[in-house]
Amino acid sequence: MSYETYFAERREAQLNELKQFLSIPSVSALSAHKNDMQQAATWVADKLKEAGLETVEIHQTDGHPIVYAEHLQAPGKPTVLVYGHYDVQPVDPLHLWDSPPFEPEERDGKLYARGATDDKGQLFLHIKAVEALLREEGALPVNVKFCIEGEEEISSPNLPGFMDRNSDKLAADVVLISDTSLLEKGKPAISTGLRGLCSLEIAIHTANTDLHSGTYGGGVPNALHAIVELLATLHDSQGKVAVDGFYEGVPELSAAMREEFAKQNFNDDKLREKLGLDALFGEEGYSFVERTGARPTLELNGVYGGFQGEGSKTVIPKEAHAKITCRLVGDQDPALMLERIADHLHRHTPQGAKLTVVPGEKARAFNMDPSHPMLQKAADAYESVYGTRALFTKDGGSIPIVETFSRVLGAPVVMMGFGLPDENLHAPNEHFNLENFDKGLLTIVQFLNQL
Amino acid sequence: MSYETYFAERREAQLNELKQFLSIPSVSALSAHKNDMQQAATWVADKLKEAGLETVEIHQTDGHPIVYAEHLQAPGKPTVLVYGHYDVQPVDPLHLWDSPPFEPEERDGKLYARGATDDKGQLFLHIKAVEALLREEGALPVNVKFCIEGEEEISSPNLPGFMDRNSDKLAADVVLISDTSLLEKGKPAISTGLRGLCSLEIAIHTANTDLHSGTYGGGVPNALHAIVELLATLHDSQGKVAVDGFYEGVPELSAAMREEFAKQNFNDDKLREKLGLDALFGEEGYSFVERTGARPTLELNGVYGGFQGEGSKTVIPKEAHAKITCRLVGDQDPALMLERIADHLHRHTPQGAKLTVVPGEKARAFNMDPSHPMLQKAADAYESVYGTRALFTKDGGSIPIVETFSRVLGAPVVMMGFGLPDENLHAPNEHFNLENFDKGLLTIVQFLNQL
Repeated sequence: MSYETYFAERREAQLNELKQFLSIPSVSALSAHKNDMQQAATWVADKLKEAGLETVEIHQTDGHPIVYAEHLQAPGKPTVLVYGHYDVQPVDPLHLWDSPPFEPEERDGKLYARGATDDKGQLFLHIKAVEALLREEGALPVNVKFCIEGEEEISSPNLPGFMDRNSDKLAADVVLISDTSLLEKGKPAISTGLRGLCSLEIAIHTANTDLHSGTYGGGVPNALHAIVELLATLHDSQGKVAVDGFYEGVPELSAAMREEFAKQNFNDDKLREKLGLDALFGEEGYSFVERTGARPTLELNGVYGGFQGEGSKTVIPKEAHAKITCRLVGDQDPALMLERIADHLHRHTPQGAKLTVVPGEKARAFNMDPSHPMLQKAADAYESVYGTRALFTKDGGSIPIVETFSRVLGAPVVMMGFGLPDENLHAPNEHFNLENFDKGLLTIVQFLNQL
Repeated sequence: MSYETYFAERREAQLNELKQFLSIPSVSALSAHKNDMQQAATWVADKLKEAGLETVEIHQTDGHPIVYAEHLQAPGKPTVLVYGHYDVQPVDPLHLWDSPPFEPEERDGKLYARGATDDKGQLFLHIKAVEALLREEGALPVNVKFCIEGEEEISSPNLPGFMDRNSDKLAADVVLISDTSLLEKGKPAISTGLRGLCSLEIAIHTANTDLHSGTYGGGVPNALHAIVELLATLHDSQGKVAVDGFYEGVPELSAAMREEFAKQNFNDDKLREKLGLDALFGEEGYSFVERTGARPTLELNGVYGGFQGEGSKTVIPKEAHAKITCRLVGDQDPALMLERIADHLHRHTPQGAKLTVVPGEKARAFNMDPSHPMLQKAADAYESVYGTRALFTKDGGSIPIVETFSRVLGAPVVMMGFGLPDENLHAPNEHFNLENFDKGLLTIVQFLNQL
């Protein structure tokens, strides 16, 4: 039987199973859902057993459980580690949902529910693809491991430790993740890069009290003057980061990468109009997809100090604050970047102001060479199902756990996403286009068979 | 009988009268106190009648009443218009008061109550000084008018209109105001300048929605980057305002003014230590008293945009805001300054950002030549009572109504203050040092007699 026929015959039953999974409100961020997290983990474990995995384990952690499973009956063949997550984002604001987030509903070929695309729906494809191979062939063409966590939406606090302690158990030739998107409908993409991240908060303090601008204005430092003067030194007028050494470790864009980016045919004007902007803005000499895919940033996410109420208040504020995050690329070292930014800020702090810098998150960028055979095989698999070869893209966002997998396991990571960019992940009316449910199953089967 | 004896004999009775006045919670800002405002106005009118003023009128306005009184029995002699206000600031935070704000209490030679120094206590001195002259001499040495309002603490919205409509009635050779402070205990001062004011609010808008810094960071304008870059252009690194034409109308400090400022013997280091500052800050070439007394400013009173909560949020904010006030000196035109600042801001708005400017208040600076005979006579009066000649100072704050009096009535304004700088005006535990109650009565009598 062809896999098309196999999956077509089971489509309704499998969608009903997925709906069961989506009905479990496994919101990792909210302690009220602790039992739902256990239930979701158990559901995943049960489905892995049903699919025919040999060993299925639920590992308790300091947070939510990690489900591990394996099927290692293909000696001499590569080992594939599938990663996914059974936890979902909170659902607020609830009133903006057209159907309840944990009562899955099909409309117009889309399945609506929290987690439909991120990541329950995509994770489910892997379980059902492995099940199909085992039922149709009686064996798997490769060795398969699953590592499914319940804390992705809260920054995976327990997974890196689990990986370190179980690096032998998790060892694989390739890590396979479906938690990203096609470029657009019918246009598959494989992300070969994710930006890293570092964050910091700064505070400027001047006098020990707010002061009246009549009595003191012109004669004492103003924390807001100091912070805007300081923050303005962080970029040049073209938006390039002006911190010494910030671009250390940033690879120059190769002609090949530029060609790959150009293939996306990204329409800058369309984006500009959609966002209501007179002009896009960024480093000269780079297109939008290059700026967001292959260049680092330093963004002010929040700046505040002084009076914010209605009307005016003649106050000289004693303190001001800023929240900053950087996206990092290539070999930029997050710890070193935080140090250099702090140095820069200290060197540029205006007279009469005291600076405090509190460093925060640190995650390295992830990069894969698109010519890696595993990525080429993934592109082949997409091509055989979608009729068009996957493009290799760089994502502007950060999924720190991907870099951790790649580093701890020393294995290439294939980000084989089946979502679409407009499926409202993290937002009301999250959904999954069922066209990619169908094609996703076939693509995964194809990929595993080709390895 | 000497006036010393006259006032000494009546001291307790007069303080009890003042306590009555201070017991009326005449908070102009709060509509719940509307009846208290009427009661306070009536109290003032009654006391003016008791004192022997011929005509006493209560003028209703769109807000709180204005009390007018006159005694014009000195033909050929100058006319003095006394200005004061019977309204007080709100009392919050109430729990920080050591005794209830409207239950006046004497402690250590100080009278504690809201309004004790600002301005009921000081206004009361003028009523009692005129009363003393009438009782002791049977006549006044000059013509006297009183104009007492109830809206000073809410920016006097109705007084300028009243002045315009009644400029003949209010006509005077000198306006006498006791609503300021000595430099310090035993060291009288006459303010010969008040800074003007203008205010504006600005907003920067970029995209029509907040954006994710992973997906968009580096490729779109960030409202916070734009606003800090823009606001940083408003000053040079020495704190001088960098707006073209901002200093037009600012007089150079004369050697005489510098000498006058130097006489204050102001201790910059003491202030720096009190405020917990590593360094004071301001335009080069000027001392603290010169910077705050004779130089204009442009102060950021509030700046805000983006995420202000706990932790970090990878957002590119779509908007950012700033509140700005300027203190003006000399002939700086507030309307023109607002225009020039707006021009500067529009010229410096970074690419991709849209600027909105909303102008606010406008008030001119007030200046008197210290050599004016009225001011010299006021200094004589202080000298005869305090044993030391009053210094002529420039105040950094703005009392727009003073400039209005001077302009509408074409008369010099004598700011003969009897408060002290640490009497907690506008704050909990406001009080009035009774040493200056006693000396204030004598100084006013002396001044009126000398005219």
